[in-house]
Amino acid sequence: MEQKTNVIAEDDKQEILITRTFDLPVELLFKAYTEPEIIEQWMGTKVLKFDFQKHGSFQFSTSDPKGNKIAFNGTIHNFVTNQKIIRTFEMENMPFGVQLEIYEFEKLSKKTSRLKQSVIYQSVNHRDQNLKLPFKQGINWAHNRLEGILTKSK
Amino acid sequence: MEQKTNVIAEDDKQEILITRTFDLPVELLFKAYTEPEIIEQWMGTKVLKFDFQKHGSFQFSTSDPKGNKIAFNGTIHNFVTNQKIIRTFEMENMPFGVQLEIYEFEKLSKKTSRLKQSVIYQSVNHRDQNLKLPFKQGINWAHNRLEGILTKSK
Repeated sequence: MEQKTNVIAEDDKQEILITRTFDLPVELLFKAYTEPEIIEQWMGTKVLKFDFQKHGSFQFSTSDPKGNKIAFNGTIHNFVTNQKIIRTFEMENMPFGVQLEIYEFEKLSKKTSRLKQSVIYQSVNHRDQNLKLPFKQGINWAHNRLEGILTKSK
Repeated sequence: MEQKTNVIAEDDKQEILITRTFDLPVELLFKAYTEPEIIEQWMGTKVLKFDFQKHGSFQFSTSDPKGNKIAFNGTIHNFVTNQKIIRTFEMENMPFGVQLEIYEFEKLSKKTSRLKQSVIYQSVNHRDQNLKLPFKQGINWAHNRLEGILTKSK
């Protein structure tokens, strides 16, 4: 099945570039990354802390199917409403290190928008460790879920 | 003149790797990056904010020789005392973007230590813009200054 989310991970680079067009207004897409209640719904994580401001930070937690706790945390370097978020992201106790993430939100029409996400790793090796997970399928699935949940809420 | 600070910037990579051995105990070297009064001395910047903790942040300011204000800011993703700092760093109003910086501090002997610093850019282009500045000379000069000031304070 065709995946709507495009993922580019070139050999020997330490970044992953992700793009997706959503049938959602850009304001709603931005909320999916900045409002704790919406994040909890589509990411399926518990939001333990979400201080969304310049120099803010966040802490998420979830469990894998075996009941093991998985924790995520990061800082908000800065943001521009409906346009951009620059943050760090770490999946704790995994060999992926800390990532710098840049989210760019673009209005395409009143009802459609595009997300460009750059995930930049500490090294090529850290990135390649992460790509051993079903990364492309996972993010496409998460984006489908995001779009589905927010389409219902419109 | 030989530069004590080693700077590696491979073609087509989006990182700069910096290493330097200091005639300073690791505890003192770590303080050079975590105590505002010492940062002000060797960086020559005014420290406007320095909240050094996990998910903390900082804001520095200085002026160029023409009197133009130069501002820097970032977040502290996390740290381990005398071992590691992971933070973001941005030189404002410059085409270098936001960097992810990893500092690793290593004790070599009671009186000597090594710093390994990785600076990871949003893209190869952002990094190459920064390298147009006299980057290698600048960081070597700053490290010399750091070592000189802290040697006197011992």
